[in-house]
Amino acid sequence: MAVPDALDQYLKDHAGEFEDQLCQLLRIASVSTDPQYAPQVRQAAKWLVEHFEQLGLEAQLHETPGHPIVVARGPHVPGAPTVLVYGHYDVQPPDPLEEWISPPFEPTRRNGNLYARGATDDKGQMFTHIKAAEAWLRTTGSLPVNLIFLIEGEEEVGSQHLEPFVQQHRRELNCDCVVISDMCQFGPGQPAITYGLRGIAYYELVLRGPKQDLHSGTFGGAVTNPANVLVQLLASLVDEHGKVRVPEFYKDVRPISEKERTRLASLPFSEEEFYQQLGVTGGSGEQGFTVLERRWARPSFDINGLTAGYQGQGAKTVLPAVASAKFSFRLVPDQDPEAITAKLEQYLRSQLPPGVQMELKSYHGARAVLVDEDHPYVKAAAEAIARAFGTPPVFIREGGSVPIVLTFQEQFQVPVLLLGWGQNDDNTHSPNEKFSLADFHRGIRASAYLLDEIARTGG
Amino acid sequence: MAVPDALDQYLKDHAGEFEDQLCQLLRIASVSTDPQYAPQVRQAAKWLVEHFEQLGLEAQLHETPGHPIVVARGPHVPGAPTVLVYGHYDVQPPDPLEEWISPPFEPTRRNGNLYARGATDDKGQMFTHIKAAEAWLRTTGSLPVNLIFLIEGEEEVGSQHLEPFVQQHRRELNCDCVVISDMCQFGPGQPAITYGLRGIAYYELVLRGPKQDLHSGTFGGAVTNPANVLVQLLASLVDEHGKVRVPEFYKDVRPISEKERTRLASLPFSEEEFYQQLGVTGGSGEQGFTVLERRWARPSFDINGLTAGYQGQGAKTVLPAVASAKFSFRLVPDQDPEAITAKLEQYLRSQLPPGVQMELKSYHGARAVLVDEDHPYVKAAAEAIARAFGTPPVFIREGGSVPIVLTFQEQFQVPVLLLGWGQNDDNTHSPNEKFSLADFHRGIRASAYLLDEIARTGG
Repeated sequence: MAVPDALDQYLKDHAGEFEDQLCQLLRIASVSTDPQYAPQVRQAAKWLVEHFEQLGLEAQLHETPGHPIVVARGPHVPGAPTVLVYGHYDVQPPDPLEEWISPPFEPTRRNGNLYARGATDDKGQMFTHIKAAEAWLRTTGSLPVNLIFLIEGEEEVGSQHLEPFVQQHRRELNCDCVVISDMCQFGPGQPAITYGLRGIAYYELVLRGPKQDLHSGTFGGAVTNPANVLVQLLASLVDEHGKVRVPEFYKDVRPISEKERTRLASLPFSEEEFYQQLGVTGGSGEQGFTVLERRWARPSFDINGLTAGYQGQGAKTVLPAVASAKFSFRLVPDQDPEAITAKLEQYLRSQLPPGVQMELKSYHGARAVLVDEDHPYVKAAAEAIARAFGTPPVFIREGGSVPIVLTFQEQFQVPVLLLGWGQNDDNTHSPNEKFSLADFHRGIRASAYLLDEIARTGG
Repeated sequence: MAVPDALDQYLKDHAGEFEDQLCQLLRIASVSTDPQYAPQVRQAAKWLVEHFEQLGLEAQLHETPGHPIVVARGPHVPGAPTVLVYGHYDVQPPDPLEEWISPPFEPTRRNGNLYARGATDDKGQMFTHIKAAEAWLRTTGSLPVNLIFLIEGEEEVGSQHLEPFVQQHRRELNCDCVVISDMCQFGPGQPAITYGLRGIAYYELVLRGPKQDLHSGTFGGAVTNPANVLVQLLASLVDEHGKVRVPEFYKDVRPISEKERTRLASLPFSEEEFYQQLGVTGGSGEQGFTVLERRWARPSFDINGLTAGYQGQGAKTVLPAVASAKFSFRLVPDQDPEAITAKLEQYLRSQLPPGVQMELKSYHGARAVLVDEDHPYVKAAAEAIARAFGTPPVFIREGGSVPIVLTFQEQFQVPVLLLGWGQNDDNTHSPNEKFSLADFHRGIRASAYLLDEIARTGG
């Protein structure tokens, strides 16, 4: 089935209506982290269920111990592949309110953008796929593929109830690929397919020394200072070349292929501009790799928090009883967070001087994700995006982790297509969140084409 | 002049009265740091002026921009040396109140101790010298030496106005030696003369990276993390032997003489018990030195505070924009804090990677103090203590700094006799502060004998 001309016409004719509908959803303050917004979170879920039903999809609101999960399903298409679109209808809190130019829950068009909390993350991006389905249904009476929408309300608070839900409904949700639009393009006018995410291993290290804070004059030099030991241990985790020193840390690291290095190097990216935008004159990291390689395809070590002793104004001559740090490694394929935790603990303990006790808390670990760029569905997505955006997507990775992607990969063993319609400056999680209206409509078109491309690729 | 038998008798006869008078002074809640206690601080100063006047001393309350300074002066003794007794009438806040067994400002006798805020620090210790003068005056009608009392009300808040006061009144306060009782004996039944104090150089190091906190997934590995750099810089300040690595740090360090090492080693001190009391199984520090040498006669490095990134519960994947540390070196003769600051800043800057800005704030520096143990007044003090306590004092140092001691040394170029009557477990600055009543009376006797010994030694 080719994309009918009528579909393109339908998208054009209903562009304003689509925007108005998105504004309706954006007016619902579905802030998942704040219990006082619970009614609005539920209202957003219900709005979606009704909206899906109006389009002719079979939709259900599933209760969880937290916020509800919405599942909608298109008409059965025998022999066609099944596509699961994941998204979320919950949003970040809008604070600080006084920094918003227009109120966060009164969507406002300005400079070609739609400003509202959730405009890009993720109501706007998620909605493109619903409108794409609508266009197919309204112009052809059917969909090219079996289509499932899985829209949760707890993404901004850790998706706690999604994984068990997916496990429980594994059969109904089974699919041939997953599509997620909850990320960014590479830049304005440059769409992208994200084929890799880094993993993470996050820790808190607590060192306890004397039973109480001591006077650093009376005791300094004789009593092991937990803060002194903390900086020694943390400093020992990275060598002078920016390499992590934990034994066997690099054992399972998949090298970046020459092909990929060449492709990453050809991306329109200026290291100088990158640092300039962050307000620094330069950067540092693992030697022998470019900035993009270090952000996307190499592991890294970052201290996320330090706490010890006196932190107020002026001076206090205290030898602190306790010192602690939060830190994390970003992981790449095929590093295993659990294996790293064991080696890390052993390494740290081996360096501990007398007079301090060590506790290493492991917060969460997630493996990295890498989607095979040569998979036919990835090629299908590239084709759809090229047609909709007028320019082929670049292939990029992302340095952060999206745990739910790992869940889908593990549960269904299928490719996860990460197709971001957003921009890096969309102010996600910040005041004045926005979504480009042009990208909104291009996203709808790309999604509509994608269903066709996947149908043609087959299951 | 020898100590008349009548003086000893006077001390015995008036022991109870002395305690009652001290209790009067202890009932005045002269907490210098809290403005709401300002009337009580003034009341304590006035109480002292009246008390001195009743004893026949000429006393004055001097206003300062802060709390008043009390100066009292005994009758002129031609040809005799001048002794300046320094003390303070202000006290630490009593919090946490609920931990006091008896109320902090209702002095209570228990187990041979007097419990109250200020009992040992410093009202009780300071008062011994006043009672010693009283005993001389009441039994002989005069004093063996020219005696000046300089009692301030801001010791617990940094003695800000004392140094300018001493400079302004240099001529009236000029003396042949200074006596301070605001410290501890070596242990129960073991009086001590403290002949050395360490100096200090205190810093805050602030590292600034990107203009705002960043996501450690998206940016980790490419952006210099100020917290990572902070631990590297701090860790680089000490080598694997516990030696400070700042260039020329040890250049001016006066070695501990073999004689002193032998004497320190002969003190009744158990390293094992020391660590046990602090709740640790051992300690660490500069290799090649004992615990007492490291605490008293060798420089040390301690981190006093660490602050960076996320310090709350759980995990947050932040790459912090700022990281900072407070840290200090304890100094020994003849290290110069200013020279060290210059070398330190140079050393830290030399290691700074691109992407962070460094600010090094120097809070305060003080040189170490060492009193010549062979000075006749030191011998005089040893003799007085031996007679009063029934056992000769040991010679010790203290690891902390007492900036006012340096002021006296620099202003008057005279020996400062640090004669502590307190005990290490007196709970100075803590709930249930106490002072042994036996030590109180032995202190009075020692002070009375000291005046005689100094008079015999001459000016």
